[in-house]
Amino acid sequence: MDKINIKRLAEELNLSTSTISRALQDSYQIGAETKQRVLDLAKKLNYVPNPHASSLGSRKSHMIAVVIPEVFDSYFAQAINGIESVTQEKGYHVLIYMTHEQFAKEQAILNTFHSGRVDGVILSVSAETKDMTHIQTLHEQQVPVVLFDRVGEALATSKVTTDNREGGYAATKHLLERGCRNIAFLSISRDLSIGRWRLEGHHKALRDYDLPINEHYIIDCTESDEVNGKLIKAFLRKHPEVDGLIATVEKLTISAYQACSELHLRIPEEVKVISFSNSRSAPWLNPSLTTITQPAFEMGKAAATMLCKALKHKNPASVVESVILPSQLIVRQSTGVAI
Amino acid sequence: MDKINIKRLAEELNLSTSTISRALQDSYQIGAETKQRVLDLAKKLNYVPNPHASSLGSRKSHMIAVVIPEVFDSYFAQAINGIESVTQEKGYHVLIYMTHEQFAKEQAILNTFHSGRVDGVILSVSAETKDMTHIQTLHEQQVPVVLFDRVGEALATSKVTTDNREGGYAATKHLLERGCRNIAFLSISRDLSIGRWRLEGHHKALRDYDLPINEHYIIDCTESDEVNGKLIKAFLRKHPEVDGLIATVEKLTISAYQACSELHLRIPEEVKVISFSNSRSAPWLNPSLTTITQPAFEMGKAAATMLCKALKHKNPASVVESVILPSQLIVRQSTGVAI
Repeated sequence: MDKINIKRLAEELNLSTSTISRALQDSYQIGAETKQRVLDLAKKLNYVPNPHASSLGSRKSHMIAVVIPEVFDSYFAQAINGIESVTQEKGYHVLIYMTHEQFAKEQAILNTFHSGRVDGVILSVSAETKDMTHIQTLHEQQVPVVLFDRVGEALATSKVTTDNREGGYAATKHLLERGCRNIAFLSISRDLSIGRWRLEGHHKALRDYDLPINEHYIIDCTESDEVNGKLIKAFLRKHPEVDGLIATVEKLTISAYQACSELHLRIPEEVKVISFSNSRSAPWLNPSLTTITQPAFEMGKAAATMLCKALKHKNPASVVESVILPSQLIVRQSTGVAI
Repeated sequence: MDKINIKRLAEELNLSTSTISRALQDSYQIGAETKQRVLDLAKKLNYVPNPHASSLGSRKSHMIAVVIPEVFDSYFAQAINGIESVTQEKGYHVLIYMTHEQFAKEQAILNTFHSGRVDGVILSVSAETKDMTHIQTLHEQQVPVVLFDRVGEALATSKVTTDNREGGYAATKHLLERGCRNIAFLSISRDLSIGRWRLEGHHKALRDYDLPINEHYIIDCTESDEVNGKLIKAFLRKHPEVDGLIATVEKLTISAYQACSELHLRIPEEVKVISFSNSRSAPWLNPSLTTITQPAFEMGKAAATMLCKALKHKNPASVVESVILPSQLIVRQSTGVAI
C-alpha cells in the first residue's frame, strides 16, 4: 500500500499540498466545503499526520498548554475539566504544566513555548509572579495567552476572573455578622491582583463596620503546607484575640484546622473559619466548612473558548476579551450560627 | 550577531553536526567529556534548540507523558510530584494527560505517541481498560512505558505497585477486629489487577475469619461522583445488615459519607468506613477517616527513575524492572474504637 501523505491527498483531490495542509489544520484561509472534502478523504485513506513535519511546515502543534500553580486543588481540577470540555471537541491536546507557585519555573515553562511547542496558553500565574514581561512577550509573539483566576491586570491578553473584591467583602461581612471582630486574612500573595482585590474587599467590609484595619492580621503564607501550619499556629498563639480566619486558597483550610486543633481552639466557638474553596470535602469536614465557591468549570470553559476563538484568527494576539463570573457564599458550621 | 545553531557549534568545536546533535540530546553514543564541552559552549553562546527540527533529526522530544485516570486525587497529585522531582533534574518536560477512566480515551492518547511526540510514558491505566494491546504495541515500538499503581500484569514493561493484596487484607481484618461482619467492597474495577488483588486480600481475610463471601456485597462504582453516591445509597437501603464499607479509591469516601448521612446512618456506630486514600483531609473529616495509605511520592519517583534509565539505553523496551512498595494502615475514628 502506498504511504498516505499530504502529497497523495493533494493528487487525489487535485489541490495543492499547501491547501491540503491548511485544510487539515483548520485554517481560516480555506473554505468550509474544501476542508470537508479534505477531511473526508483523509479519514477514508486513514491518513496519520507526522506531528513534527506538519508542525515545521505550518507552525501549528495542535497543542494547548495549561499552566497552573498546582494540580491538587479542587478549583484547578474543575477548571481543567472545563477547559477539556472545549478543547476535546476542537481537536486540541491539552498539556498541563505546574509552576509550584514559583516565578522562575513559570518563566522557564513559558520560554519553551516560543519555538512553536504549543499554539496557545491558558495560564493562572504563580504566587511569586510580579513581573509579567514573560507573559506579554509570549503573547506578542503570536502565541496567544488567556489568563484565568490569577491574572495580570496590566496585560493586554484575554482574561477570565471572578468578582474577587465582592468575594473578599462577602467573606468578611459574613464573619462580622457572626460576631467576629478580630479577623485574620491568610494571604497567598499580595502582589497578584486576585490577592489584592480580595484584601481590598476585606478592608472595605471592615471600614463599613467602622472597624480598624490591622496590618498584623495579614499572614503571608507559602507553598509548603508544613510551613503554613507553623505560621498560622505561631500567629494564633501570639494573637489570642483573633476570632475569625479567612483562607484565600483551599489548601490553607487544612493547615488552619490543624493549627486550631493543636492549640485546642474550638471551631467555630473560639475561632470561625471561612475559605475560598471548591472542595467536595467541605460539607464533611469537622466542622463543615463555610466557603466562597467559584464557578471553576465555567471559568475553564470560558478561557478555552476564548483561546480557540483567538487561534482561528490571523492575528491571535489581537483578539482580547474579558469576563468576570460571580462566586457564591455557602454557609456551613465553621462560621457558627446566626447571632 | 550570527544565529547560534548546531552548525555553528560544530565549527567552533571542530566536531560533526551529528555529534553535536547527539551530545545535546545526551545520547549514550557520545562520551561524557565531549558532551560537557558541547553543553558548555551551547550555554556560553546561548544556544536555543528548535524543538521540531531537533525532534525530526533525532527522534527525541525530551518530553515524558504522564497518563493518569484523573488529576484530582491526592495519590496521583503526590505521585506527579515524585515524578517531577526526577524529571526536572534530568531535563525532561512532563506532559500530563487524563483518561477520565475511559478506555477509548486512553487508547487515543497513546496512539498519538507513536510518531515521536514523547520519548516515554508513565501510565496508570483506566478503570475500563481490559485489553492492553495499545500499551504493549507502544512499548515495543521503542516508546518505553512504565506502569504505576494500576498495571497490566501480563505486560512486559517496568512496573511500580504497592502490596495491594496485603492492603485489601489489612483493611478487612481491621474492620473485622472492630466487630464488622457484613462488609461491602466499593470497587472501581474488577478487571484491573489492582482491583483484583485488593478484592483477593479482602476475600482471604473473610476466609481466615470463617465468614462467607457474598458477591452482592461488591459494588461496582463509576467515574461519576453523583452516580456513585446513588449506588451506595441504594445498596445500603437494600442491605441494612451491612456494617462496614471499604472504599478502594479516595473519591468514593465522600460519596460514602454522603450516602450514610442521607440515610441517617451514623459512622462509625452503625457503619464503619475505611478508604484507600492519601488525602490531607482524612484527619479532619467528620468522623476522621481510617485509611490505607500508599507511598505515592516514592512510587512516582521510582517510576520516573526507571523510565529515565530506560531512555538512556539503546533498546529502551528491553530495560524492564519491577518494584512493590508497602502501604500503611492509619487508624482514625471512622472505624470506631478497639473492641
